[in-house]
Amino acid sequence: MASFRQVAKRLVLGPPVRSDRMGETLLPKRLALPVFASDPLSSVTYATQEILLILSLGGLAVLHLAPWVGLGVVLLLAVVVASYRQVVHAYPSGGGSYEVAARNLSRNSSLVVAAALMVDYVMTVAVSVAAGVDNLVSAVPALYPSRVWVAVGVVVLLVAVNLRGARESGRAFSVPTYLFVASMGLTVVVGLVQAAVGHPPVAESAGWGIRPEQTDLTGIALLFLLLRAFASGCTALAGVEAISNGVPAFRRPKERNAGRTMLIMGGLAIGLFSGVTALAVVAGVRVAENPCDLIGFPGDCRSSGQRTVIAQLAAAVFGDGGVMFYVVQAAAALILVLAANTAFNGFPMLGSLLAQRRYLPRQLHTRGDRLAHSNGVIVLGVVSAVLIASFGGSVTALIQLYIVGVFASFTLCQLGMVRHWNHELRRGEGDRGRVHRARLINAVGAVLTATVLCVVLATKFTHGAYLVVLAIPLLFLLMRGIHRHYRQVRRELEPESGELPSPSRVHAVVLVSAVHKPTLRALAFARATRPDTLTALTVEVDESDTHLLRSEWERLGIDFPLEVVESPYREITRPLVHRIKELRRSGPRDLVCVYIPNYVVGHWWEGLLHNQSALRLTWRLRFEPGVVVVSVPWQLDSSHRRDVDREHHPPGHVRRGLSR
Amino acid sequence: MASFRQVAKRLVLGPPVRSDRMGETLLPKRLALPVFASDPLSSVTYATQEILLILSLGGLAVLHLAPWVGLGVVLLLAVVVASYRQVVHAYPSGGGSYEVAARNLSRNSSLVVAAALMVDYVMTVAVSVAAGVDNLVSAVPALYPSRVWVAVGVVVLLVAVNLRGARESGRAFSVPTYLFVASMGLTVVVGLVQAAVGHPPVAESAGWGIRPEQTDLTGIALLFLLLRAFASGCTALAGVEAISNGVPAFRRPKERNAGRTMLIMGGLAIGLFSGVTALAVVAGVRVAENPCDLIGFPGDCRSSGQRTVIAQLAAAVFGDGGVMFYVVQAAAALILVLAANTAFNGFPMLGSLLAQRRYLPRQLHTRGDRLAHSNGVIVLGVVSAVLIASFGGSVTALIQLYIVGVFASFTLCQLGMVRHWNHELRRGEGDRGRVHRARLINAVGAVLTATVLCVVLATKFTHGAYLVVLAIPLLFLLMRGIHRHYRQVRRELEPESGELPSPSRVHAVVLVSAVHKPTLRALAFARATRPDTLTALTVEVDESDTHLLRSEWERLGIDFPLEVVESPYREITRPLVHRIKELRRSGPRDLVCVYIPNYVVGHWWEGLLHNQSALRLTWRLRFEPGVVVVSVPWQLDSSHRRDVDREHHPPGHVRRGLSR
Repeated sequence: MASFRQVAKRLVLGPPVRSDRMGETLLPKRLALPVFASDPLSSVTYATQEILLILSLGGLAVLHLAPWVGLGVVLLLAVVVASYRQVVHAYPSGGGSYEVAARNLSRNSSLVVAAALMVDYVMTVAVSVAAGVDNLVSAVPALYPSRVWVAVGVVVLLVAVNLRGARESGRAFSVPTYLFVASMGLTVVVGLVQAAVGHPPVAESAGWGIRPEQTDLTGIALLFLLLRAFASGCTALAGVEAISNGVPAFRRPKERNAGRTMLIMGGLAIGLFSGVTALAVVAGVRVAENPCDLIGFPGDCRSSGQRTVIAQLAAAVFGDGGVMFYVVQAAAALILVLAANTAFNGFPMLGSLLAQRRYLPRQLHTRGDRLAHSNGVIVLGVVSAVLIASFGGSVTALIQLYIVGVFASFTLCQLGMVRHWNHELRRGEGDRGRVHRARLINAVGAVLTATVLCVVLATKFTHGAYLVVLAIPLLFLLMRGIHRHYRQVRRELEPESGELPSPSRVHAVVLVSAVHKPTLRALAFARATRPDTLTALTVEVDESDTHLLRSEWERLGIDFPLEVVESPYREITRPLVHRIKELRRSGPRDLVCVYIPNYVVGHWWEGLLHNQSALRLTWRLRFEPGVVVVSVPWQLDSSHRRDVDREHHPPGHVRRGLSR
Repeated sequence: MASFRQVAKRLVLGPPVRSDRMGETLLPKRLALPVFASDPLSSVTYATQEILLILSLGGLAVLHLAPWVGLGVVLLLAVVVASYRQVVHAYPSGGGSYEVAARNLSRNSSLVVAAALMVDYVMTVAVSVAAGVDNLVSAVPALYPSRVWVAVGVVVLLVAVNLRGARESGRAFSVPTYLFVASMGLTVVVGLVQAAVGHPPVAESAGWGIRPEQTDLTGIALLFLLLRAFASGCTALAGVEAISNGVPAFRRPKERNAGRTMLIMGGLAIGLFSGVTALAVVAGVRVAENPCDLIGFPGDCRSSGQRTVIAQLAAAVFGDGGVMFYVVQAAAALILVLAANTAFNGFPMLGSLLAQRRYLPRQLHTRGDRLAHSNGVIVLGVVSAVLIASFGGSVTALIQLYIVGVFASFTLCQLGMVRHWNHELRRGEGDRGRVHRARLINAVGAVLTATVLCVVLATKFTHGAYLVVLAIPLLFLLMRGIHRHYRQVRRELEPESGELPSPSRVHAVVLVSAVHKPTLRALAFARATRPDTLTALTVEVDESDTHLLRSEWERLGIDFPLEVVESPYREITRPLVHRIKELRRSGPRDLVCVYIPNYVVGHWWEGLLHNQSALRLTWRLRFEPGVVVVSVPWQLDSSHRRDVDREHHPPGHVRRGLSR
């Protein structure tokens, strides 16, 4: 078993990497852009679609408001990009929302940001992978029935790649990102030119009708639907903060390069998003969450899905099934997978940071064989795969959860920045005019994102956002609890001096269940430690068994007395613990060493046949102060089959006695 | 947690019982009959029904052959009862099929019998509980949708009762058994009298048609259907062997009393079974496995079931919904639950016997708090509940599995008896005429049951019997494997003398991960055992951490040298094992005691935050000969919340220092 596991591990991970191989590579702008922009740019693939989905609930009449909703999203995007540029300049060390909140806000606020970010990372993976698979399915409809499995498979692949610790190679990222920008841009430009010359592209769904959920919307109800659509469209903002986390990876001058890259990214995101939205309106794209609500949908609406908006646009502009259609779909699927991958970098880093500050279990801080924070990678993979599976891989359903996390951390980060600038002003250093301007930008950002957060909460709460509203405080409490525990333990264990009182005498107690070699070895070992007293103890569950044991004991002439503990209720643990406590009471400063013979077997199922009472007793004795348990292993022949060190020793090494 | 579990355990089980309270009570015939006969008599409730179910597959024309099939079953029942009377006389110590096979046949045959019996016991529980719930549902149709849950609930109740170790009180058994015999007998007599006087009872289903699976059956096909019906009817024989297992419980003269009780039971079973079958034919009962195959079935055939045959008969004879109808149904349900309960006595006993002979894990031999073989009770409950649930509580489906086990053990037992008598004849003792007669009876029994076994296998194989055909050899191999393992271990551990070589020197190694009280305690304890050498070892995963550790070490003035083991691959276990192996190599006859400081926490989740590497290391070091692990526990404050001995100490006892 172990050896098979080891071999499999090596096949997936490759050989382990030494700690001193950790290093840094700096990125020029043209490589940094694809590395950090894959996440925000990838949301272009679904943001327009989500706006149209919500608007179509109000029927075709409301659909024509899509450009206005899109415009609102673009404006917000511009403000947020501007706000995060300030973060880049203020924290060139690569702050990110958590650092900003931790330095400028209270400990609790920063933990809320951390919780929101963790949710955010998980949702980035879930949404991006689900959307990527949707685009794959749009190109290969046969995959529709197994789309959840495909999505889970992609997550597993991402976990494997990140456990190998693939460095975020700029080159690997640049191809799909630039391909996506180029192909998507071409689609928009060609489509709009076609429209300008009088031959507008027509989407396959342009002629379909939609069964509206609500009709004749007026006043509040219409406003609410528009707000819901706007909130959905705000997914276009997800990932905008990526560059501000990664400033140290830029070539010098870091701040300026990062700031410029941020501008380029913002421009591309705004351009692509508004282009896609405009083209979707021109081409008359109709989408519905449930294809059965589409009047005119061909095929069985229960066993097949609708194509994504960008698939419909690419098909309308370049012709269905042409080379360019497949290029657009492939680029979209790839950039979405890359976007998911960025979370696999961010989450383990954040987890490690929080673990180091003792807000999460220490295991998240340790680096695996390949220097990756393996446990964080695995946790992220498992949680997001479970989410994808439980929401049936539906992007629309998952997005409801996504936006809350995104905007909660946006808002807190901007608030932190406002306080940061206030602090700067109080210190009175630097260019006061610049600081005032920066503070204004961040304040506007904070107000706007807070407003959006309220809108999102109000409009999405019952559509799944409540899960996040539950998850963030739970994570918050969990982190607080863990921190309190670690702090308490640390305080409890702090030594006052380098010396603890030494026990005055040592009593050895050897547990005897039968007269066999393990027992004799335990006796021999116990004697070798030269204790002050040595007692062989057995528990009488069955009188005749004890009689047999005694006669064996005498027959072999073992030269220690055998003490029998009675157990009228046929228990093993309690009478022994009771006897050991008596020993302790006779000398409260003494040490009792309990020697328990133990079989070591080669297979887990052999373990089921042995050692059950020994395990229980060992566990129970841990609660007794001044008592230590000495497990004396007896290696059964079958245990040698288990070659525990195979991967570092050539075969035969152990058997030739080289490691024994 | 522990205390809650303890309280719950005591509520379910009651106080523990001392070993010396084990005793025997002897039963007079009038109490022995209900104790042992509940199992065979209860099969009257479903045997007729199963015959009719199969015959109706051939359509109404074949149904009139039911009496002939019933006659075959009655003849077989008579032969088997006669055969088992011989077992009673030959093994007054209460043999049962396993004992007979173990003494007269090869070890392998007896293991096959044991496997068949285990399957038999599991199926007794599953079939009896499912049939009992069917009769309950016949009286209270509203329970139909939740019948599987009701059945699982009954199994849970049986497990709880048997964990309490309720003795098989004759009185508790006698009421339902006699009530069933009386009410069922009355139904048959009154019904047949009504028919004789020209007003035959008419079943509710008499007018319904049946959609046959096959029509116009002739020749081989008809014969095969009749054989299938006969095989199903043979369920009437299940449990006949019960008395032969329980001879020691009878009052003296044990053999004669047991033999007579067997005769009475046989008579009752034959009488009731033929009466019910005759009445069912007279009243024109129609049954089908799927109610949708019944033409004329009222209500929705998918969401409700058909009433059992005895419910239909009781309703036809005494009027639907009358007092007697409910009495018959209640008695039927109760006797079926009692029948299931007999398996809860037989299975744990068999398991314990097999565990004692080392064919099953030892845990099945230990007696729980209340003297019951608790583990056997739990295993039986879990397996049968899973079976009931996975077959949707269908008696017809479960019975296919039942009969194979029953007849396999019948056949092997009768074969064993033939060999037993051969042996007697060779010894030439006793009444040769009587022995010849007994051998003839058993030989006829063996041939007949073997024939039925073949019929059952041929006709039921694809209907589920294949599961048993797989399970029996698997259990057989499992038992062989366990036995081989235990024997091998025993041989390996057999001491040649009372002395094993004593280690020449003792090296103490204390593992240090941080300078805190647990480490200091481990150092103090290690020093107290006065080892020949004492080394404090730490693993360097991170250079700065080690530096910090060293300076703490020096600051506190700890007077042992600290040895640092390098770990370029950030592992803890491997470098330490490597270092410890080196120590061993320098003195192959030395003993290395590895002291590992351990936190003891109060909640399982706190455990997740600590001790992970300590656990891994402890596990790994078990494979090293000459190395023992000494866990030095440090009880964190939270561990005191866990009052491990609450149920034996009044509250406050521990805190007042009385047990520390």
